[in-house]
Amino acid sequence: MRIKFDEKYFMAKAIDEAKIALSMGEVPIGAVIVADDRIIARAHNQVERLNDVTAHAEMLAITSAANYLGGKYLENCTMYVTMEPCQMCAGALYWSRISKIYYGAEDPKRGFTALGNLMHPKTKIHKGVLEHECKELLDKFFISRRNLN
Amino acid sequence: MRIKFDEKYFMAKAIDEAKIALSMGEVPIGAVIVADDRIIARAHNQVERLNDVTAHAEMLAITSAANYLGGKYLENCTMYVTMEPCQMCAGALYWSRISKIYYGAEDPKRGFTALGNLMHPKTKIHKGVLEHECKELLDKFFISRRNLN
Repeated sequence: MRIKFDEKYFMAKAIDEAKIALSMGEVPIGAVIVADDRIIARAHNQVERLNDVTAHAEMLAITSAANYLGGKYLENCTMYVTMEPCQMCAGALYWSRISKIYYGAEDPKRGFTALGNLMHPKTKIHKGVLEHECKELLDKFFISRRNLN
Repeated sequence: MRIKFDEKYFMAKAIDEAKIALSMGEVPIGAVIVADDRIIARAHNQVERLNDVTAHAEMLAITSAANYLGGKYLENCTMYVTMEPCQMCAGALYWSRISKIYYGAEDPKRGFTALGNLMHPKTKIHKGVLEHECKELLDKFFISRRNLN
């Protein structure tokens, strides 16, 4: 059977990254960046491990993709990220000039859409890809944290 | 003569950082982070050198300060930055819970205030410190760039 490289395929890869974050006690968010149907960067949230509020999955993936490409702009790239990017990550994605973003779960509190659309006008945004799976991981994490306190 | 550790003193240190950026062909923006009248982090814009749109002075300074402190929050810290932070940096400063921010030059196009106040409600913001000196460096850079093209 031929693998279909569609948005669900790549979002599943981002979810794999989110699961790594979960296993390390991080808020389970993962991201991959794709160019020509190839994953050129994958990252998960590492805020706790790196002790750094800037170490969101999206930020690490942007840096990694630029490093791979040898150029700072991601004009022909697509990001798949399990949760709606925050203001910081939306700002970084703006500067990166990325072509497309697919995200899974919404973040009504700190997601960029709550602040109006902060993205580059050329960036196409699609939400709700494997939303249930993305949200389930986040819910699982926050419920386990609540039970700890 | 005793040095007065006031906002001009620390902004001058941020300007020193911006000058390093200028000498390296980067947009001349510098930042320092201060805790108890001591500079715990200094950084300048390194977008070109690192080939990374996330390498703004503020982002590098936040990571560096957290590294110094051994904790990710900058609750008792002040940032001095030569230009008004962009959306990405405002987002990072939000997550950092920094106490105070002083900035020099305004950025009417991409500064965070153009998008509404995106900062943490506990963060105090002061603008216009050594504004002329901060802006002069930026103007100098953009004029030299314009003449190149």
